[in-house]
Amino acid sequence: MEIDSLGDIGIVESSSKVKPARTWRSWLVGNPLLTADAPNQTIGKLIGLAVFASDALSSTAYASQEILLILAYAGSSALGYVFPISLAIVSLMVIVSISYEQTIHAYPGGGGAYIVARDNLGELPAQTAGAALLTDYILTVAVSISSGVAQITSAFPILFPYRVEIAVSMVLFIMVINLRGVKESGTTFAIPTYFFVFTMVTTVAVGFFRYLTGSLGTVVNPPEFSGAEAITAVTPFLLLHAFSSGTSALTGIEAISNGITAFKEPRSKNAGITLIWMSSILATLFLGISFLIGPIHAVPSEAETVISQLARTVFDGQGAFYLALIGGTAIILIMAANTAFADFPRLSALHAGDGFLPRQMTFKGSRLVYSRGIITLAAVSSLLIIVFKASVTRLIPLYAIGVFLSFSLSQAGMARRWWKSGHLKKGEQIVEPGSIVTHDDKWIVKLIINGFGAMCTLVVMVVFAITKFKDGAWIIIILVPVLVTIFFSIHRHYRNLAKKLSLQNYHSMSISRHRVVVLIAGVHRGSLAALTYARSLSEDVTSVHVSIDPAESQKVREKWEIYGEGTRLVILDSPYRLLVEPVMEYIGNLLAKRLPNEIVTVVVPQFVPRHWWENFLHNQTALMLRFGFLFKPGLVIIEVPYQV
Amino acid sequence: MEIDSLGDIGIVESSSKVKPARTWRSWLVGNPLLTADAPNQTIGKLIGLAVFASDALSSTAYASQEILLILAYAGSSALGYVFPISLAIVSLMVIVSISYEQTIHAYPGGGGAYIVARDNLGELPAQTAGAALLTDYILTVAVSISSGVAQITSAFPILFPYRVEIAVSMVLFIMVINLRGVKESGTTFAIPTYFFVFTMVTTVAVGFFRYLTGSLGTVVNPPEFSGAEAITAVTPFLLLHAFSSGTSALTGIEAISNGITAFKEPRSKNAGITLIWMSSILATLFLGISFLIGPIHAVPSEAETVISQLARTVFDGQGAFYLALIGGTAIILIMAANTAFADFPRLSALHAGDGFLPRQMTFKGSRLVYSRGIITLAAVSSLLIIVFKASVTRLIPLYAIGVFLSFSLSQAGMARRWWKSGHLKKGEQIVEPGSIVTHDDKWIVKLIINGFGAMCTLVVMVVFAITKFKDGAWIIIILVPVLVTIFFSIHRHYRNLAKKLSLQNYHSMSISRHRVVVLIAGVHRGSLAALTYARSLSEDVTSVHVSIDPAESQKVREKWEIYGEGTRLVILDSPYRLLVEPVMEYIGNLLAKRLPNEIVTVVVPQFVPRHWWENFLHNQTALMLRFGFLFKPGLVIIEVPYQV
Repeated sequence: MEIDSLGDIGIVESSSKVKPARTWRSWLVGNPLLTADAPNQTIGKLIGLAVFASDALSSTAYASQEILLILAYAGSSALGYVFPISLAIVSLMVIVSISYEQTIHAYPGGGGAYIVARDNLGELPAQTAGAALLTDYILTVAVSISSGVAQITSAFPILFPYRVEIAVSMVLFIMVINLRGVKESGTTFAIPTYFFVFTMVTTVAVGFFRYLTGSLGTVVNPPEFSGAEAITAVTPFLLLHAFSSGTSALTGIEAISNGITAFKEPRSKNAGITLIWMSSILATLFLGISFLIGPIHAVPSEAETVISQLARTVFDGQGAFYLALIGGTAIILIMAANTAFADFPRLSALHAGDGFLPRQMTFKGSRLVYSRGIITLAAVSSLLIIVFKASVTRLIPLYAIGVFLSFSLSQAGMARRWWKSGHLKKGEQIVEPGSIVTHDDKWIVKLIINGFGAMCTLVVMVVFAITKFKDGAWIIIILVPVLVTIFFSIHRHYRNLAKKLSLQNYHSMSISRHRVVVLIAGVHRGSLAALTYARSLSEDVTSVHVSIDPAESQKVREKWEIYGEGTRLVILDSPYRLLVEPVMEYIGNLLAKRLPNEIVTVVVPQFVPRHWWENFLHNQTALMLRFGFLFKPGLVIIEVPYQV
Repeated sequence: MEIDSLGDIGIVESSSKVKPARTWRSWLVGNPLLTADAPNQTIGKLIGLAVFASDALSSTAYASQEILLILAYAGSSALGYVFPISLAIVSLMVIVSISYEQTIHAYPGGGGAYIVARDNLGELPAQTAGAALLTDYILTVAVSISSGVAQITSAFPILFPYRVEIAVSMVLFIMVINLRGVKESGTTFAIPTYFFVFTMVTTVAVGFFRYLTGSLGTVVNPPEFSGAEAITAVTPFLLLHAFSSGTSALTGIEAISNGITAFKEPRSKNAGITLIWMSSILATLFLGISFLIGPIHAVPSEAETVISQLARTVFDGQGAFYLALIGGTAIILIMAANTAFADFPRLSALHAGDGFLPRQMTFKGSRLVYSRGIITLAAVSSLLIIVFKASVTRLIPLYAIGVFLSFSLSQAGMARRWWKSGHLKKGEQIVEPGSIVTHDDKWIVKLIINGFGAMCTLVVMVVFAITKFKDGAWIIIILVPVLVTIFFSIHRHYRNLAKKLSLQNYHSMSISRHRVVVLIAGVHRGSLAALTYARSLSEDVTSVHVSIDPAESQKVREKWEIYGEGTRLVILDSPYRLLVEPVMEYIGNLLAKRLPNEIVTVVVPQFVPRHWWENFLHNQTALMLRFGFLFKPGLVIIEVPYQV
């Protein structure tokens, strides 16, 4: 940097070559990246499916099991309801998919629930949708990792006691990967996703084949049932409760509509087709699993997942195919958690950019990722895993309620949008921050589709909230409004600040009087350096000495007459041996009497130690003064350093 | 405070009426006291004995038991050595008492080991004596409280598992009492001390009577022996080991010589007589107990103290007299700890006053006591109690070695003093900081007495160090030199600082150039206020903006042309999105090129939150800058506050 600030008057620019220092951080997360290096690449449908489907497809690993678990409360006779309930959930899946397909075409720039709600419903629904999604991403990490670990401990029961430690380590590992910056190169996603789809389709297909040929047995050595014994009859409440648990299958279905910009042109078309593919695969696998666990008499258990039971029944033991399926399932679950690590920081940066979260969330770290968001997500989800002991069954009641809230708000926003669209003339347009609204001939059909989607998801959310309330849904029902309140408080703070700092009607101030107060503990080179500095600031300098020991003060008085350069010295007697309080009282009086545009500056000589431990040998008066005043208006505190 | 600093030129004095705020602290330790209220009262011999004897007399509670414990390693036949060893210890006690009687007359102003060694032997021996005494006061608290709790748990075995908690609570209780300021009103001390002496003398007297009349039995239901089984023969090492343990009886004997100024005139005479009374009582009780525990077959045990065994044998069970003795013993032990709470802070203030400990140790708190010393003592002794599980037997090997080191140095100092005194002519005098040396006719006798005392205590110390080395004495043998090294490092720091700050050859400086750098994140009322302030400091103002987002920087540039008052703006491009580092590089360059007497001031606009949580919504740039530079010479950092 070659600037001599003396010669240049005006605006000077300079490029700093300063790189962050190489520390343990650069070892862990990699060398810093230049802002100009931000990646920019698009993907096709096949890769797109792999990138965005892991969250949605991974829910097949636990959705059927959670339905089973609830039904088991009514005894083995109720287990026959798994398949009909799964069919109901798939119907819902179709409705939501069609709704989102419309969103994809309307928001080619990315149509997450936050953006759609903000454009069409206003700030409160948008913040609500955002809060719901943010909590949901946290739960995606907790549930996916817990379920992934459950798959692993099903195959290796010896690891079961360490499941919380394993799960937290995985979260931290994914955190580091994301802090390094994930190159979403497609192939890294494609291989495990298609591997999972392949092994799962094979398992279901072989299972059906054996079922139809009558060679499918039941689970050998079934694990112990984790729930209570049969304690209830098959009631509508129980069925709705089971249905609610199964709706976790729908989580992740919105991922494509958030990430449309990643697709090759024609973006919306490609993204839409990918969404349909994804939903079809998801529905097929989910229905297949839900069907097959009936005949094999699978048992819901913490010790062994239903997927593991299915696989070892279909493949007659824990062979290579069994291990391939368990491995594939564990990996896709971990990738689902990884998806949340991509989405949470982006959404929180969006909130922060709109002023609803701390501005710092919009800063990109040394690796061009939103480091603060990544770390927040890892911390909170690890906490959840620890609190809920990595149990999918205990985490599920918190999950999905946020998803359905955001589904509902997003679809309602879309319906509102079609309404607006229908009332525009041809050629007219409304420019929203997220997209442009034009007239659409088929607006009535589209409004009905999205409106129906909104209604269905709203009903599901209410059912979920009621049936799962005491299992943990109440936490989310309290948390979301609390978060929304916090978001609005933050927003109010930034808005007020911007208004107060605005330069409208700004007139340059002049300082009418600048009083400078120098604190003098003793008369020595250090305090006289501070006096010299103080006298360079203003003509109006007063030195203040707090007298605790009269003999010491007498010395100060005598020396001041010699070295004080004729300046004023005020000696404050402190009968209670206090140091900071008399100074604060004195300065408080000055401030109370100050005129507008008058400034008081307090200069504190500050000893600079050569060794850290030397700090313990000196009073930290400046520090205490700073805490005492905590930045009063019109008061500036300056430490003038002196060094030995 | 009614000062208007505008009108007054010259030196102004003002008495601040500001009192410390009433908080939970004033509830706990009492209202603050005025410096002028420092107490000033003297006491007579009877009260003096009570005030100063608790430490010395309380050691009768454990000294005999510790001898017994070591001898028990050689089996029950060795227990007969308790009394002869006690006789040897009492001989030592006589020698030390006579030595100290001479000190009392030579140092009417108070003759602690630190002062005597400082006056006569120099700084290194004085600091060594001081370090030894300070560690010893800490051990006095730990041992006395542990022994006091052991007496209580002997009477109430149900409390035994809670002995560490009880002991630590007692230390904290005594700490609070001392932070309030102990009015050493004499009677508060006299009643329990004389109660202890009365009950202990009665116990010993009744014991002897019953022994002589043949009616003294042996301990009924003796507790379990805590040591190992008989594993050694009676060797000289074992006897010396047992002797070392018993020397803990001498601790506290120096107390009167430290506190001579508390006595009524003729001070030295009164103090000397009190010392002789104290030693006589101590010797009598110690010998009596050591004798009686033989015939009653007392067993050394962690579960029941020897005192408790003696009392219930003498009084045939746990009646009122038994409880009176146990209670009296527990109380005098707690008072002994309290003595250390009086001595430790005074001695550490003495060290601090001479510049060997942090100056803050000389400050008196709101209640006119050396609060920092009191808190330090409580903290360290509590730690010891926790580490050694409140076991007297495990603490004893650390104890007494410091006492004997300080005895030895103190007596050597006295010997040196008599030597000087003998070589003075009549009427001549040497004025030392602690006392005045004049000619003394009997200097040879006195030199021999103190010299013999020094030699004896030195030998005992060496014996102690060797026999107890691996039991824990090594800790003290390492600790004392370490402490002395720390004391001298602190002293060197203060001396260097004073030299560097000295005003010898001081010439008033003038600042040749004052560069001011203002950090600008955005152009708004806050940053323009900082600019106005900066322009009031110097003509040479440069504003610096770090560019992370080009669009943001473009706005800053445009606004600066309007509002920048024609000042220079430097835009630092930061390709790695760093905020603080480019500024540090820029300022580092300025500092590198600065001339002598040139000062660089960095002005940082600082947002002042109305609520604490608002801090999280802003960058703490000034704070990071401050840490980054950690007070470089010639650099002043100023936060100019702006508030909403």
